[in-house]
Amino acid sequence: MNNVSSKLLDSAVTELSKLPGIGKKSALRLAIHLLRRDAIDVELLGNSLIKMRNETQFCKRCHNISDGELCEVCRSPKREHSTICVVENINDVIAIENTGQYQGVYHVLGGIIAPMEGIGPADLHIESLFQRIKDEDIKEVIMALPTTVEGDTTNFYIYRNLSKSLNKITTISRGVSIGNELEYTDEITLGRSILNRLPYEDYMNK
Amino acid sequence: MNNVSSKLLDSAVTELSKLPGIGKKSALRLAIHLLRRDAIDVELLGNSLIKMRNETQFCKRCHNISDGELCEVCRSPKREHSTICVVENINDVIAIENTGQYQGVYHVLGGIIAPMEGIGPADLHIESLFQRIKDEDIKEVIMALPTTVEGDTTNFYIYRNLSKSLNKITTISRGVSIGNELEYTDEITLGRSILNRLPYEDYMNK
Repeated sequence: MNNVSSKLLDSAVTELSKLPGIGKKSALRLAIHLLRRDAIDVELLGNSLIKMRNETQFCKRCHNISDGELCEVCRSPKREHSTICVVENINDVIAIENTGQYQGVYHVLGGIIAPMEGIGPADLHIESLFQRIKDEDIKEVIMALPTTVEGDTTNFYIYRNLSKSLNKITTISRGVSIGNELEYTDEITLGRSILNRLPYEDYMNK
Repeated sequence: MNNVSSKLLDSAVTELSKLPGIGKKSALRLAIHLLRRDAIDVELLGNSLIKMRNETQFCKRCHNISDGELCEVCRSPKREHSTICVVENINDVIAIENTGQYQGVYHVLGGIIAPMEGIGPADLHIESLFQRIKDEDIKEVIMALPTTVEGDTTNFYIYRNLSKSLNKITTISRGVSIGNELEYTDEITLGRSILNRLPYEDYMNK
């Protein structure tokens, strides 16, 4: 694949194929597509990637991705700053924001406690979460970590440290996905959704 | 999806999702991947795309993609400059180069004759092909266009114009793909592969 008659095309293909999920063939297809696009479009693409990498920061309060010292969520006066949703990564923030159902703020841990991989509490933004509970007027912490052993460990670690100073520590509900059929739902999820059943009135009002 | 807390990330996602086959979710995944890569890697990627778009040219002889006036194939003294392979696009050049089986040079039409889409011979690099046959010492023209009505039309148009001045006009062979089973091969391909059967000695020597 390195026999291409243009070294410039070749190096673009090489760089594109370093992206996850993009092999040599897709990279070539993308590069040839870009050759046909207006030069200004390609500059927009290239520069937006470089600018994003060089200029984005992480919010010094919640560690979410940000264009300034504080992210837009932390800066917004419309959000409920007394509710913190604890997530693993910025992807999770984006996923929750896209639901349009959450009005509180976030705290991005930047990972979860994984002793097998040598990741302990000190490697994550956990201490700064505890500090926020002390400094800010927080009424509720919502745990939205993955349902893995590591996620549960992290949940428990945070719960143990916060339960004395904070009354309301909740976790997002797990259950049968909307639109999914019961018979195809895994047993653990289905079991939990029965244990954590809700009054029908609550369900109707949502 | 536009509620991301960083406008820089948002614009990178928007630009990435303009690429063919990349939706908003994949674009976000790629952008977050790039955020985690070294800044120098992202600059390499961005700049290689911009440089490719701005600095590649098309070979003035064969219209293949090129870093200079003439492409590497046309410049190479190792190639047989008396054999021209006529292809639709630069993708086809790359595909044939990757086989390592072709030692001649190319002529890239930049499309095929498609009256339904208003593409006639004058819109393609066909006249310059005829000029090459006159100017250069060409012994064989190999047609490697798609097996569509448009491809056949283009083949015939070129054949009609060249058959008087050139003895050897060939076309790449069509047949059952190597490794494919006969029963799953479409009838037209299988039919052609019987009509165009080869002496077994020829097959063995390749």
